[in-house]
Amino acid sequence: MLDKKHFKAFQKIVGKENIYDDKAHMIAYSYDATRTRYEPDAVLFPKDEADVSAILNYCNTHQIVITPRGAGSGFTGGALPANGGIVLAFEKHMNKILEIDMENMLAIVQPGVINMELQRHVEELGLFYPPDPASEQYSTLGGNVSENAGGMRAAKYGITKDYVMALRAVRANGDIIRAGKRTIKDVAGYNVAGILTASEGTLAVITEITLKLLPKPGFAKSYMGVFPSVDNAMNAVFKSLAAGANPVAMEFIDSLSVKAIKEKLGVSLPEDAGALLIGDIDGNVPEEVAFQLETLENSFKENGASDFQVAESKEDREKIWYARRNVSQCVTLYGSKKLNEDISVPRSKLPLALKEIYKIGDKYGFQVPCFGHAGDGNIHVNVMVDGSNEKELEEGHKAIEEIFQLVVDMGGTLSGEHGIGLSKAPFMDIAFNEAEIALFRQLKEAFDPNNILNPGKMGL
Amino acid sequence: MLDKKHFKAFQKIVGKENIYDDKAHMIAYSYDATRTRYEPDAVLFPKDEADVSAILNYCNTHQIVITPRGAGSGFTGGALPANGGIVLAFEKHMNKILEIDMENMLAIVQPGVINMELQRHVEELGLFYPPDPASEQYSTLGGNVSENAGGMRAAKYGITKDYVMALRAVRANGDIIRAGKRTIKDVAGYNVAGILTASEGTLAVITEITLKLLPKPGFAKSYMGVFPSVDNAMNAVFKSLAAGANPVAMEFIDSLSVKAIKEKLGVSLPEDAGALLIGDIDGNVPEEVAFQLETLENSFKENGASDFQVAESKEDREKIWYARRNVSQCVTLYGSKKLNEDISVPRSKLPLALKEIYKIGDKYGFQVPCFGHAGDGNIHVNVMVDGSNEKELEEGHKAIEEIFQLVVDMGGTLSGEHGIGLSKAPFMDIAFNEAEIALFRQLKEAFDPNNILNPGKMGL
Repeated sequence: MLDKKHFKAFQKIVGKENIYDDKAHMIAYSYDATRTRYEPDAVLFPKDEADVSAILNYCNTHQIVITPRGAGSGFTGGALPANGGIVLAFEKHMNKILEIDMENMLAIVQPGVINMELQRHVEELGLFYPPDPASEQYSTLGGNVSENAGGMRAAKYGITKDYVMALRAVRANGDIIRAGKRTIKDVAGYNVAGILTASEGTLAVITEITLKLLPKPGFAKSYMGVFPSVDNAMNAVFKSLAAGANPVAMEFIDSLSVKAIKEKLGVSLPEDAGALLIGDIDGNVPEEVAFQLETLENSFKENGASDFQVAESKEDREKIWYARRNVSQCVTLYGSKKLNEDISVPRSKLPLALKEIYKIGDKYGFQVPCFGHAGDGNIHVNVMVDGSNEKELEEGHKAIEEIFQLVVDMGGTLSGEHGIGLSKAPFMDIAFNEAEIALFRQLKEAFDPNNILNPGKMGL
Repeated sequence: MLDKKHFKAFQKIVGKENIYDDKAHMIAYSYDATRTRYEPDAVLFPKDEADVSAILNYCNTHQIVITPRGAGSGFTGGALPANGGIVLAFEKHMNKILEIDMENMLAIVQPGVINMELQRHVEELGLFYPPDPASEQYSTLGGNVSENAGGMRAAKYGITKDYVMALRAVRANGDIIRAGKRTIKDVAGYNVAGILTASEGTLAVITEITLKLLPKPGFAKSYMGVFPSVDNAMNAVFKSLAAGANPVAMEFIDSLSVKAIKEKLGVSLPEDAGALLIGDIDGNVPEEVAFQLETLENSFKENGASDFQVAESKEDREKIWYARRNVSQCVTLYGSKKLNEDISVPRSKLPLALKEIYKIGDKYGFQVPCFGHAGDGNIHVNVMVDGSNEKELEEGHKAIEEIFQLVVDMGGTLSGEHGIGLSKAPFMDIAFNEAEIALFRQLKEAFDPNNILNPGKMGL
């Protein structure tokens, strides 16, 4: 419950209509995609950056903790008010595309803009914003920047951080800072925009984002490679890329996932499909698309692909993508609860990583269907358990911990795109040594000495 | 002079043969490309990361300041031991390419490796390291990362930061930290590699660099657009890029520079050349190169280009590039001393920026030939003065300050690629407000509480 005194102070800043503190709304803002729940004391809807500054300044003085929240679609609890306090929500006012600068090919947006809204808007103008997290229909750009969201197109086009040219943000003490410029190059001062990206709302509250846009390539096709085994497919991933292929996307579906799609959706996939690689190719000229497809086909076949399909029409491309788009819901064939982790390893380690992950599954007696963004080494590993069975859940988490240790030992990371948040915080010491965690703490303290910004996230 | 006690301590760490403290060497390590001179007390050549850690730990305990130094080719004094103390030099031992990982397309190098050594090495393997600062023949990758070096190819391929996948570094207290991974995606923990890049050796000493490599495109050509005026050329820059052109390089030479090249080198350039745009195009297929050239030619002609030349053979391409490669030495036609600043503005502001820069030159009575990386908005502005005339030098610096203010007012930056170092430190408050500078100081303090790492640089 929010103290009356604080309520009045916030009312002065944002107006009564921009404060929720009733039970129904506290529940509505208590969860995210992890389905864990923590109720805040109040939700505030700042009208503008000045409001954010005034709120933070007040909270800093009164030691009230703040959780910035986009769409609440994160998979690691980054937007959960784990310590109560204030949720700062941007969907009501700070949700505007402020400018599309066609001449310099960039967009300036407020944090509450939905990813797909920007994508659609710029594509109508012949431009292109590549980062496309699976949540693109509802996740916000503020959340995308805070978590450094990835997506299908990362193999060729990189991730959110590669598009952040500049940020405006408010520090815990209310100071408004600008970081970066509308320029391609800028080496004056520390790269503050770089460290705010992926900082999960723990360092400052982002109030404005300048994003790089690209020209939209004129030609595109989709492809599907059918492989007898996961091992063949995983070898084809890094070997085709090392051979010079540069696909927009290269998505992987393993044998268990293929089986689940067939059974759940009745989709007709090649009989011998032990694993699939699905993706898109684009280019400014048809010959570039042809070059890419040829490079892929050659590498895939050298690595044992039994089939290589290409689709051009919108309809055929959707068919190729159907399996990938629906795989996530199908794997529930193997268990009512999915312990889903987005590990990432150097691409050449994918074949070994998958083998070892399945072994860990076998050891615990769980099916572990895997799929995801193989082109950038990022795989969604799903340990399937019976969600109603406490013991299975516990064992499942132990399996996950072993998988994390394996991945880190292979030079990989706990998270390719979901972030650490609350759910991966217990595993930070697998990935980082004491000196590295000490540095994180010191950075957090430099930005936010009273620890009011999203405390507890990333284990900090 | 280094205290005997300290000398002995360092001798224990690196061995006598890896310490210089004689006058001749102190002079040799006292300058960089700014030609300003500060002698250190000693130069140490660490054999490995453990040596760096031991040296820093000792210096931190004894409050001895340290300046890490690459090739000393920087333009802003970043490698100058402005407060004496220790210069850490990597050219003797920590100068090895440790690994080229063909499967994951990355290189692992020590900080003392020369940029061109890596470029050559990976090109022999069919790979490509794009960042190509003008100093590529002698500058080191450690220096490139510390200053976030740019280069000609930044228009298409970005700058050093876009290739840094991971770093190992030593903090002031001797702690060894790893930041980043051999993976495309990594969102675990703060982006420490991101903030170390461009930090000019003020936060930590970089001991190992993991750099992304690309496949080498199979086809390339060079082009030259001839324009009647600077204004035409500057409009052609952002309009051709907004039209979808993606040249590797788009270099600009203004009227004064064209005149200087003609007079100094007797090069035959088109009679009516008021400004030139010179660059390269590459692609995996000839049709992509043709597409790019057509897009450029159309946009250039729409913006008044009187000629558009294309070169394919190595010899013809060198001819096109000859003017650009030699322009820097030719502008001395206008004054014995060049006050050279590498400002950067949003590309669409280039036409206005150039006009206003010439006006400032006129006001002070100086010629200001400009050239550089127009494709990414980064222009080398040269205020030409009589170096032996104190008053002219002083006036020249005043003109520079006005130019910085103009550039920042246009949304630009003090430095596109040279960094702040010592020479631009006095102008930090033009570009940053108090809150931003306070944050820089807090970050510096978080990393290096005793301020032993390159103190005074960036005004910190």
